[in-house]
Amino acid sequence: MPGLKRLAVVWCALGAVVCSVAMRAQQSAGDGPRYRDGKTLIRPADYREWMFLSSGLGLSYEPPNAAAAASPRFGNVFVNPSSYRSFMQTGKWPDGTIFILENRSSSGEGSITKGGRFQTELTGIEAEVKDSRFPDGWAFFNFGPARSLKDAAEPLAGQSVAECVDCHTKNTAVERTFVQFYPTLLEVARTKGTLKPGF
Amino acid sequence: MPGLKRLAVVWCALGAVVCSVAMRAQQSAGDGPRYRDGKTLIRPADYREWMFLSSGLGLSYEPPNAAAAASPRFGNVFVNPSSYRSFMQTGKWPDGTIFILENRSSSGEGSITKGGRFQTELTGIEAEVKDSRFPDGWAFFNFGPARSLKDAAEPLAGQSVAECVDCHTKNTAVERTFVQFYPTLLEVARTKGTLKPGF
Repeated sequence: MPGLKRLAVVWCALGAVVCSVAMRAQQSAGDGPRYRDGKTLIRPADYREWMFLSSGLGLSYEPPNAAAAASPRFGNVFVNPSSYRSFMQTGKWPDGTIFILENRSSSGEGSITKGGRFQTELTGIEAEVKDSRFPDGWAFFNFGPARSLKDAAEPLAGQSVAECVDCHTKNTAVERTFVQFYPTLLEVARTKGTLKPGF
Repeated sequence: MPGLKRLAVVWCALGAVVCSVAMRAQQSAGDGPRYRDGKTLIRPADYREWMFLSSGLGLSYEPPNAAAAASPRFGNVFVNPSSYRSFMQTGKWPDGTIFILENRSSSGEGSITKGGRFQTELTGIEAEVKDSRFPDGWAFFNFGPARSLKDAAEPLAGQSVAECVDCHTKNTAVERTFVQFYPTLLEVARTKGTLKPGF
């Protein structure tokens, strides 16, 4: 159907400019944080299709105990695509950025594996959000362990979040995010000059 | 400009059907393998924006030696988005699927880390492609180590690829792919009934 094909090409070409202007704002907002009652974060259903930043195994702020060392967990970090694209251009996180930390068990036995560890079942999901609706512009959320995963979570408060904020303020390479652990973003931040002093 | 906004909405709504039909084939082909001279695979520049499947640390077919055990590498696996979406609906890989295995060094020292390992610099990139232009429908590629990364690679041939094919035929959970190591896809394959016997 060459007639239909030509119509489609013309339509798409003419419409592209109009559509892109109209849709860009919606698309950018569309993959950011969504809330119930203003500040209860809805767990994103599609974060596995977001941008992968990096993965660590058994990462710990404190020397791990024997149990943790014997069965370490993987942590996969994802960020919403529109904020990723913004960071790649500016080295900064826009308002409406949402990070997901997905924790998974690991195994060293199975299939052809003779060494090393691979990822297995989900153990928990956490989030960090940059959003001007929160008092200092950032908030932390915990959707709980996988066996009782919550569909939505209120921002962490009190002493537990004070430790999050303190650590994410003192030890992070860019704003409140551990870009030093995301090698491809670290290069971008270096180029854009957005790394904190000391990095 | 409410007039422009209304025009944009109408245009987008009317154009969506025509555009989606015309663009879908192009989009699907667009993120698949691209070749020089018919079968030399061009290294995809944007694979970090593809779908992340999983990550392993120090995975090895053979018991690792002391050097490998002391500084294990991470392997991140990505697949092109249109093939991912197809797999999520069918549990099978369409023609034109491309997997990227990105290898990275690991470190256990830096920043606030007191235990575990995180990812650092790129060490190499490999690819596996499902494409009917190859004799048995699949091909393997190695873009070489990071210090001399190739822009394009010919399909591996001879004894080295014979071992790839043998292992990816005997030990894989779905077609020639190690879906047993990709926990979110493993569930899909189980639901769709596409796992090989024994899985």
